[in-house]
Amino acid sequence: MQQPGMQVAMVLAKNYEDIEATSPKDFLEAHGATVTVIGAELGEIVGKKGGSLTADATFDDVQPDQFDMLIIPGGGAPENLRIVDAAVAFTQDFMASNRPVAAICHGPQLLISAKVLDGRTLTSVNKIRDDITNAGGHYVDEALVVDGNLITSRVPDDLPVFNQALVEALRPAPVS
Amino acid sequence: MQQPGMQVAMVLAKNYEDIEATSPKDFLEAHGATVTVIGAELGEIVGKKGGSLTADATFDDVQPDQFDMLIIPGGGAPENLRIVDAAVAFTQDFMASNRPVAAICHGPQLLISAKVLDGRTLTSVNKIRDDITNAGGHYVDEALVVDGNLITSRVPDDLPVFNQALVEALRPAPVS
Repeated sequence: MQQPGMQVAMVLAKNYEDIEATSPKDFLEAHGATVTVIGAELGEIVGKKGGSLTADATFDDVQPDQFDMLIIPGGGAPENLRIVDAAVAFTQDFMASNRPVAAICHGPQLLISAKVLDGRTLTSVNKIRDDITNAGGHYVDEALVVDGNLITSRVPDDLPVFNQALVEALRPAPVS
Repeated sequence: MQQPGMQVAMVLAKNYEDIEATSPKDFLEAHGATVTVIGAELGEIVGKKGGSLTADATFDDVQPDQFDMLIIPGGGAPENLRIVDAAVAFTQDFMASNRPVAAICHGPQLLISAKVLDGRTLTSVNKIRDDITNAGGHYVDEALVVDGNLITSRVPDDLPVFNQALVEALRPAPVS
């Protein structure tokens, strides 16, 4: 990242897949970005594997346009967020303005409920592939899929290419 | 149940919601039915809450027409079964022949992948309601929904009415 100070929103809820949150967070922070964990409530959020992260803000505390990118880790978090209206609206704002949105594993469940996948190409854990198809998305089985502003990966093993794509997406466009 | 010896298939995979398997199994067995646990592999299947049940048969060992009813417990099991072709085909057979199919919580995920929900009315845990809608189903938020052969409930708290509906569905039609 050539431009420090990029602001990244990571949306989380209980049972998030730990490494799918901590790995991108650590990687982006090491590249100079600030990652804000946003939850339905402030405080500790416990992951599926027993780790925890602290929600720095709720959806009421922030505006989506404060952030340059949205990250949606997987595990059980996306299905807990997709039933929270404020989380759905927050997600829709990024997609409507074409700002980068990155989702891994079950992350696209939140995108399905935001109704933003029609005609888009993406990947996910294979357990939700039929739901992506039914939402109008084109499901592909690849480690990393970048379709415009939408960055997706399947599973924790894909994190190296996923993380690299996040950094690329935050890189400012070259001045022509 | 007036007719003992009814045969019930319960499909399971790891991370099933324990009580959503054991409660219907115990209730039906107390009413004289035989419940066969069917998995992708033989042997112990560990539930989300740490209990376990033994798969008595794999999908290769049985034919769907050996059974009078199919039960799909929730938790993480349905998303593990929906990517198993034999589990999807097994489910489709019950729906095609209009034999009773009962699903609770995340259970309808298997029905979505079986492509059998178009035009049907059902309930589930609210976390998958949008996926049901996108699959052509009509989602309602009720403790028990019976739409023809399809019996659905939302969560463990609904088990008393769910279990009772299973017994009713196995009762032979009155001779006219």
